[in-house]
Amino acid sequence: MTRKGKVYLVGAGPGDPELLTMKACRILGQAQVVLHDDLVNPEILHLAPPSAHIQNVGKRCGRPHISQEEIQSRMVTFATQGLTVVRLKGGDPLLYGRAGEEMEALRDSGIDFEIVPGITAAFGAAASARVPLTDRRLASKVVFLSNHLCTGETAILEKNSISTDTTVVVYMPGKDYGELAAKFCAAGFAALTHCLVVSSATTERQQIHSSTLEKLAASPNLPAPALLIVGGVAQHYSCEENPAGLSRNSLETDALT
Amino acid sequence: MTRKGKVYLVGAGPGDPELLTMKACRILGQAQVVLHDDLVNPEILHLAPPSAHIQNVGKRCGRPHISQEEIQSRMVTFATQGLTVVRLKGGDPLLYGRAGEEMEALRDSGIDFEIVPGITAAFGAAASARVPLTDRRLASKVVFLSNHLCTGETAILEKNSISTDTTVVVYMPGKDYGELAAKFCAAGFAALTHCLVVSSATTERQQIHSSTLEKLAASPNLPAPALLIVGGVAQHYSCEENPAGLSRNSLETDALT
Repeated sequence: MTRKGKVYLVGAGPGDPELLTMKACRILGQAQVVLHDDLVNPEILHLAPPSAHIQNVGKRCGRPHISQEEIQSRMVTFATQGLTVVRLKGGDPLLYGRAGEEMEALRDSGIDFEIVPGITAAFGAAASARVPLTDRRLASKVVFLSNHLCTGETAILEKNSISTDTTVVVYMPGKDYGELAAKFCAAGFAALTHCLVVSSATTERQQIHSSTLEKLAASPNLPAPALLIVGGVAQHYSCEENPAGLSRNSLETDALT
Repeated sequence: MTRKGKVYLVGAGPGDPELLTMKACRILGQAQVVLHDDLVNPEILHLAPPSAHIQNVGKRCGRPHISQEEIQSRMVTFATQGLTVVRLKGGDPLLYGRAGEEMEALRDSGIDFEIVPGITAAFGAAASARVPLTDRRLASKVVFLSNHLCTGETAILEKNSISTDTTVVVYMPGKDYGELAAKFCAAGFAALTHCLVVSSATTERQQIHSSTLEKLAASPNLPAPALLIVGGVAQHYSCEENPAGLSRNSLETDALT
């Protein structure tokens, strides 16, 4: 009987390869198979050994080229062959990453697995924009939601469901900023509440646009992946200073030596 | 005129030193001064150069031995002397870390600063418990709140404010699990909703206790730092398998070589 392999569900972080954890770096260095999402920075894939078998299993919502079932089947098949498999996801694997289904498939097949957390885009974006997510004077709660559900629906925000001491981070806000702003106002935020659209957080392509809910509909549509931060904390963003907030060095030259 | 220094607000992650980001590791290696919170793992402090000046500026809520103003004053003073200062916080610096006030003090003094994100305890705990934070079948939203406000108040959960497709993570849940469970039921969760108490997530002292809101009052009080995960996703926790979810290697022997 062959020894069964193991699957690591690993978070690749928000974009900047240097925001990978040291554990993720170590596990990638041991990978025999890497199954990665579209949004993972290619620099991170270079941390796997040259002999590793690397597959892009990314799928765009609405027009999949690989089904979720097929991804799960590949994870199980490789691990059953005794291989060390890294399932590499953008951000953190447990947030909007279908990890629940993947862990279920692994449990059902008796495959050992482990989760290696990653910095999710919300923390990367807040760090680059230099705004706190909570602030004792402004926000005691943080809500993460996604405005892009694969069913085609957008997120439901119940009327008056948001207290004003909340920071809301919307993943995949889509292009209809006006509709989103109207929902937030109905849910309890004032029209003058500050917000930030952050595109490609922590990468060299990063763009940040500051606005208020009232003016959000007129904001430029920044390219995906983007997220929207809404709440009093967003007023602390100042575009004059250090707009990208980046001081990264190349992985090869610095962080790994 | 002396060149002004720079302050880095750096996240130390949830506990396991290997869950530090590579960027945090690099910045710590350049630190001339480290001002750190109580909960930071001592192994992480060893990443600073031996010549670095290291100060514990931790304060326990309710009985401070260093005021927030004093911490801010030290950051400004050291940076004004031209030094590279690392302000090291448990988890991520922008969540429940008073970074808003610290960034304001730095801006007011014209000190350059940068944020280096960290893995917050919620993601560390979910990874160790191997439960997703979102799941298309169970939870589309995640809420972070703290039940321990320095004013002595506990978190306010408005009646019927939580939809059942939410995962709630409570930082510093305190010891009155019964009161907390009653609040959650009033806020919209069913009494049979699953929950997990996770203590010292991702460390060797980690403990996980699985319950439901109905039975939470009778749960053992696990030592701080702890957090509570409430929602349908918590039903996926299985204590039989791999209880700690740890496979860490010592930083010295593996991750940094």
